[in-house]
Amino acid sequence: MLKLGLLSLLACAALVRAETGYDAWLRYAPLEGAALERYRLTVPAVVAVLDPSPVAMSARAEIVRGVKGMLGRTLREESSVPKESAIVMGTVAQLGGLIPAVTLAPDAFWLKSTTQGTGHFIVIAASNDRGLLYGAFALLRKITLGEGLANLDLRETPYAPVRWVNHWDRLNGTIERGYGGNSIFWENDHVRQDLTRVADYARLLASIGIDACSINNVNADPRLLTAEYTPEIARIADAMRPWGVRVAISVDFGSPQSLGKLDTFDPLDPRVAAWWKAHVDELYAAAPDLAGIVLKADSEGRVGPSAYHRTHADAANVVARALAPHGGLLFYRGFVYDHHMDWQNLKNDRGRAAYDNFHALDGQFEANVIVQIKNGPIDFQVREPASPLFGGLEKTNQAIELQVTQEYFGQARHTVFLVPYWKETLDFDMHAAAGDSTLKALAAGKTFHRPTGGFVGVVNAGLDENWFGNHLSQANLYGYGRLAWNPDLSSQKIADEWTRLTFGANPKVDQTITQMQLTSWRTYENYTGPLGLQTLTDITGDHYGVNVEASERNGWGQWHRADEAGVGMDRTVATGTGYIGQYRPAVADRFESLASCPDDLLLFLHHVPYTHRLHSGKTVIQYIYDSHYEVAAAVSAYVEQWKSLRGLVDEQRFNDVLTQLEYQAGQAVVWRDAVTTWFYRASKIADAKGLVDHYPGRVEAESMTLAGYTVRDISEPTPGRANGPPIVTPAEDASGGKVVACPTGAKSCTASTKFAGQPGWYTLRVEYFDQANGVAHYRAWVNGQAVDEWAADLRLPSIRLDSTTSTRRTIAGIALRPGDEIRIEGVPDGGEVAALDYLEIVAEK
Amino acid sequence: MLKLGLLSLLACAALVRAETGYDAWLRYAPLEGAALERYRLTVPAVVAVLDPSPVAMSARAEIVRGVKGMLGRTLREESSVPKESAIVMGTVAQLGGLIPAVTLAPDAFWLKSTTQGTGHFIVIAASNDRGLLYGAFALLRKITLGEGLANLDLRETPYAPVRWVNHWDRLNGTIERGYGGNSIFWENDHVRQDLTRVADYARLLASIGIDACSINNVNADPRLLTAEYTPEIARIADAMRPWGVRVAISVDFGSPQSLGKLDTFDPLDPRVAAWWKAHVDELYAAAPDLAGIVLKADSEGRVGPSAYHRTHADAANVVARALAPHGGLLFYRGFVYDHHMDWQNLKNDRGRAAYDNFHALDGQFEANVIVQIKNGPIDFQVREPASPLFGGLEKTNQAIELQVTQEYFGQARHTVFLVPYWKETLDFDMHAAAGDSTLKALAAGKTFHRPTGGFVGVVNAGLDENWFGNHLSQANLYGYGRLAWNPDLSSQKIADEWTRLTFGANPKVDQTITQMQLTSWRTYENYTGPLGLQTLTDITGDHYGVNVEASERNGWGQWHRADEAGVGMDRTVATGTGYIGQYRPAVADRFESLASCPDDLLLFLHHVPYTHRLHSGKTVIQYIYDSHYEVAAAVSAYVEQWKSLRGLVDEQRFNDVLTQLEYQAGQAVVWRDAVTTWFYRASKIADAKGLVDHYPGRVEAESMTLAGYTVRDISEPTPGRANGPPIVTPAEDASGGKVVACPTGAKSCTASTKFAGQPGWYTLRVEYFDQANGVAHYRAWVNGQAVDEWAADLRLPSIRLDSTTSTRRTIAGIALRPGDEIRIEGVPDGGEVAALDYLEIVAEK
Repeated sequence: MLKLGLLSLLACAALVRAETGYDAWLRYAPLEGAALERYRLTVPAVVAVLDPSPVAMSARAEIVRGVKGMLGRTLREESSVPKESAIVMGTVAQLGGLIPAVTLAPDAFWLKSTTQGTGHFIVIAASNDRGLLYGAFALLRKITLGEGLANLDLRETPYAPVRWVNHWDRLNGTIERGYGGNSIFWENDHVRQDLTRVADYARLLASIGIDACSINNVNADPRLLTAEYTPEIARIADAMRPWGVRVAISVDFGSPQSLGKLDTFDPLDPRVAAWWKAHVDELYAAAPDLAGIVLKADSEGRVGPSAYHRTHADAANVVARALAPHGGLLFYRGFVYDHHMDWQNLKNDRGRAAYDNFHALDGQFEANVIVQIKNGPIDFQVREPASPLFGGLEKTNQAIELQVTQEYFGQARHTVFLVPYWKETLDFDMHAAAGDSTLKALAAGKTFHRPTGGFVGVVNAGLDENWFGNHLSQANLYGYGRLAWNPDLSSQKIADEWTRLTFGANPKVDQTITQMQLTSWRTYENYTGPLGLQTLTDITGDHYGVNVEASERNGWGQWHRADEAGVGMDRTVATGTGYIGQYRPAVADRFESLASCPDDLLLFLHHVPYTHRLHSGKTVIQYIYDSHYEVAAAVSAYVEQWKSLRGLVDEQRFNDVLTQLEYQAGQAVVWRDAVTTWFYRASKIADAKGLVDHYPGRVEAESMTLAGYTVRDISEPTPGRANGPPIVTPAEDASGGKVVACPTGAKSCTASTKFAGQPGWYTLRVEYFDQANGVAHYRAWVNGQAVDEWAADLRLPSIRLDSTTSTRRTIAGIALRPGDEIRIEGVPDGGEVAALDYLEIVAEK
Repeated sequence: MLKLGLLSLLACAALVRAETGYDAWLRYAPLEGAALERYRLTVPAVVAVLDPSPVAMSARAEIVRGVKGMLGRTLREESSVPKESAIVMGTVAQLGGLIPAVTLAPDAFWLKSTTQGTGHFIVIAASNDRGLLYGAFALLRKITLGEGLANLDLRETPYAPVRWVNHWDRLNGTIERGYGGNSIFWENDHVRQDLTRVADYARLLASIGIDACSINNVNADPRLLTAEYTPEIARIADAMRPWGVRVAISVDFGSPQSLGKLDTFDPLDPRVAAWWKAHVDELYAAAPDLAGIVLKADSEGRVGPSAYHRTHADAANVVARALAPHGGLLFYRGFVYDHHMDWQNLKNDRGRAAYDNFHALDGQFEANVIVQIKNGPIDFQVREPASPLFGGLEKTNQAIELQVTQEYFGQARHTVFLVPYWKETLDFDMHAAAGDSTLKALAAGKTFHRPTGGFVGVVNAGLDENWFGNHLSQANLYGYGRLAWNPDLSSQKIADEWTRLTFGANPKVDQTITQMQLTSWRTYENYTGPLGLQTLTDITGDHYGVNVEASERNGWGQWHRADEAGVGMDRTVATGTGYIGQYRPAVADRFESLASCPDDLLLFLHHVPYTHRLHSGKTVIQYIYDSHYEVAAAVSAYVEQWKSLRGLVDEQRFNDVLTQLEYQAGQAVVWRDAVTTWFYRASKIADAKGLVDHYPGRVEAESMTLAGYTVRDISEPTPGRANGPPIVTPAEDASGGKVVACPTGAKSCTASTKFAGQPGWYTLRVEYFDQANGVAHYRAWVNGQAVDEWAADLRLPSIRLDSTTSTRRTIAGIALRPGDEIRIEGVPDGGEVAALDYLEIVAEK
């Protein structure tokens, strides 16, 4: 490795780096042929920066790095306008007469080509250094995307002043809802010694216009406010500062008592106020440009102002007043609800909570408080209506909280591009005022002329080489940043940009990946929670696999009220919880009436019989059936589409994504079967197409000839957990409600069956269980000939035999003849019992 | 990792493996599109093997693995002719009436398509199990190469019975002349515990028809014959046996005395004969199918029969008689010469040695002795005539020894495809008999109807992931095996086969790599030793860099006799050493006369003035000048040709080879400059084209403004080695005879110069020295702007400042303006002094 530290940027650009995904959308891959010739003619040899700030130096270095990567040329770095052609970066004042005098907003930039003497100039003008940096990234993006540089005249102003990301990293280095490895910030209860990745991450954020980042979990560790962490926080701030990214922290509201030796944390107690002021002053002494503080209070077990019968405004304001002299912002999370509600009371509704808690406080918050509101009223479900609270605050700053990490979206094991979902929400008209009262305008503070507001994305980039555990999931951070900068960009435009920046300009690659991304959310929705059912996942467990009933009969309030008679949560004013009444009339009227309520939100807002007909004419139950079969096929098609890119995408990423998509295709079948089975049993209405509950070619493991394997079902508790959940839970997670398992300690077990079909080429699909408590091994045989072997070594978040661990092995190209014995052998390991659900034998075309 | 060992072949085929080069030409990459469809129609679903031997099982497994890789289908393994279509493998007798009864030679195969009942069969017939294995590889090769399988009727018989490889691995795990890492066989004076790579290597050998492998250096460690090594040798034999590769060993002729407690190793002493018999019997008890023994005696310091005034025949025969009852062969190396010859005696000639030592012994060797003769009379030089000994033995078995490892061919740091060289030698007509007396026919025993004979290749595959340290060097092992099987194959055919098997079927990739390979030997010859000069390398040192005079004034006998008056070794009968008289008259007459002697061998056979005109009309000196400039440009062109394959070759191998070729392009310039400078100084004849000794754009480091750096030249001894070689040796290895070096312990040194040319884009070439005793670091600056940094971290075999360590850094795309200061900074490390030779400033197009 190079020992010189000074030129690390330079070195990064020069080194040949494998395509691990680390560079994400900032690859600056070499241009070739006509594109190379074209830009070599139009990009001048000099880049001059008239602003001496570190951020402007980053901007200049980025131009040098990008041009070196793409054009193979090292631009001359200068600090004044040269006599020859150049890229020139500076504030409008610094640029003198090079461009007309204009007023640019903070962070805005102007890319302008102009001529002076014999020089042709590409000018990047801004009013501050971040604007120069954003302009530099925009210019490089243009080159990567093949856009012309002649007659440049592009002015961009960020839509909202607040463009933040939140991290839910714990001080011990783990991440709540992180799917790309451990924290880049923390390890062993301290800030990591090597912050190289933090700086590289800040660069990624800067490239999409993000300017602030909170670095610890909103379920905050009180220790963060002790003195020993102050210099550590400052170190992170130092690492991100050159990229114009300011650091924020999350705090625990009980800190004045738990840390401060006070006997109270009552926000109205002057000693508490003084405590906050003293601690905030200390933080700013170490890191004067801290962006602010994020506060989660009175939510999911966190203490809050209710302990003293104070309001959320009281809580927010006491911290905000400490921050105000330093220019810091206080983000108060609107995610406040009672998770011990009585599920038997049909009038109870968690969806009402945010509005009920904050609407009445409108106008009571300090000017530097922002209420941070999740996009929907529940919790990042696969589809929710826009939260009514956005339309319910006129004298309070707000920000929309979007979850970039895919908690309820397959946890980065599934490819789900969230931009189309976010776009629908951002473009939703709340009818809150006469002018523009789309959600984005409200959040950005435009509708009611608030001093601030905007966007907060929950991101959980980790130490995995590709940051997110799935290459295609990078598009969500990219898309979040682009929307926070300009929510009027189309999903198509964002997907296309990201694909070309990340995978290159090949049109087939671009088209294939873009189409996959654009349809992926709808696809995922239709196997995990169509028609507004929310995500039919295990909400009291891992938030990953299927568990239709996990939402019911508990206090968490994510009820969909599915039973034998019908399905959906009645939130109408007329007969339900009244939630719909929280919207302005124009919205409420549309939602209240079955005739006008959109199908996609139907079961979120109404309880209907299974035979209710959608606007499409299809019944609800048939839609549930059909949609699951359609999207399981769609994910299989993604696999084939991706395979067509072999040789067009670098090998490592090609193989990584292929593995991910093949896994997802299996999971879509698990979801399909579990959800349709559950609703079929509940509704007792047969599938008009005859697909549900019929599995041609499927041989249940429990019906095979077993040696060593024993049949297990919902009647048996998990071994060693007598009062725990049954070994197979819920029953519909296993085909036929049963599995076979090989006892812990057994050498191996086998399950065999005789093939009775026509001679030909077949694909075998083995549905097995990859638990988190061991690495079982499997072998497949045909007539004693080994045809496959594999290890159950995925990182899945369950030790149970359920849909989370249910995994598909596909063995293609097997020649079967009548009478052939197909045998699966499992070798258990640790607590993993090498369980099998079924074998499927599918004729190949 | 998988824990199951049973199915490792299966697992290999199924796993996604990065293109590291490990699979070499046996990648079995998935076919696509029309090719896939075509073979899916013609390859049946069953592979039946009628022979139960382990080698035949390997053949069947290989068919299954290859078809699975390429077609994505797992064939059914059977053991008798099935009723349905199948690939069927067996001996002619086992196959019954499926094909006509024919007689096949050992190891030969017959691929034949036929029909019986409703079944279509692809038959692989052979007379032994190795023949089945070779037929299996041939069938798979056909599929990879896209050749049709309809109406198959291909019979192949190996040209020679002996198709061996020799390894020069030491028991401590290092390899003499190995350039791909340490030994796959040995480590820490024992056989490695994990022999997975040995088995994989045996598979590679089997795929090209190699059937025996000696596993230790011919400079043999006597310990190998102690009892503790016998089971270890047997373990290697076990690992290679399933691939039909038998193990041989090299022994030390003095062993009966040094190990056996005898007081003699006189080959005619009965106690010595008994000793050999006892030890050979022990070896065969442990490994009954050992192939034999390799013996190097009376050569380069090894003891031999001369100690007792016995003949080489006596020496060979005493060991051969011990081997005969077991069917083992004794290879006696013909590489016997005096390395203390008087260089001042113009009649002395090492080239005569092999013939002089062995010709008179013809007929005295046992029937199981093979005299192993290097292709040329010296030692694997860049060009030598065929050794006259091949034409001088009529009653003795012989084998040609070819060096696959690139000792004098750039040591795998240069790409040199040796097949065209070998082809010239093999096809050379020795005029030794009335019939076919080409060298290949003589070596194979055809000309004089010997019982055995053939090919021995010196291979030094190592632990590097790609086996050889250079992906393109794999082609030499492939080519060696293919020629040993069928020396009538053309170089073009072999290069094309290898390229398509190794890099896929893209026509541009195929054409580009094939052309590069086919011209690479001629290219390398013309910068390292044109016109039969031998390799102008440091023959007393690392055999790698340039040292024109290293061949002279010593006893090693690789003299080219270049001086002020002329150049070349007079080997004529009329006035020289008489070497030419060792050839049969038809050859000798052609070589003796300047009028008929081929230009390529001129200076190997004749001493001529520099003004001697070649058949082309050019003078010798001008040819030396021109050829060096032409091939330096040719290697630069290889780099550009390779770059045109970006995206068509997988990333890892693309980058690896690009790095290798860029390095080689720099080395070709080092050779060019050193050789032309030396001959210009010797001959005092100016280059008619004005190129030699003129280097436009070159700024010598010693003429730059130095801070810390000091000028060093041939007048100074290497620090700490007062009696050692001068610090710069020879002088022509450094441009201008001088370098600048940064004293050990200095923090850093700089060398600067002002640019005085026209404004524009330039490439900077920094010639520096990458010694083996440290990792210095360098930075390049223009006007204080860092434009590059690198580490001198190559593994090069010298600690001196010479052509071996002289290395080029190319910094492209630098915008220079008159007056710019270009500064190179060096940071020494260990004994490496961050030395610089020159800076070259080249205008870009």
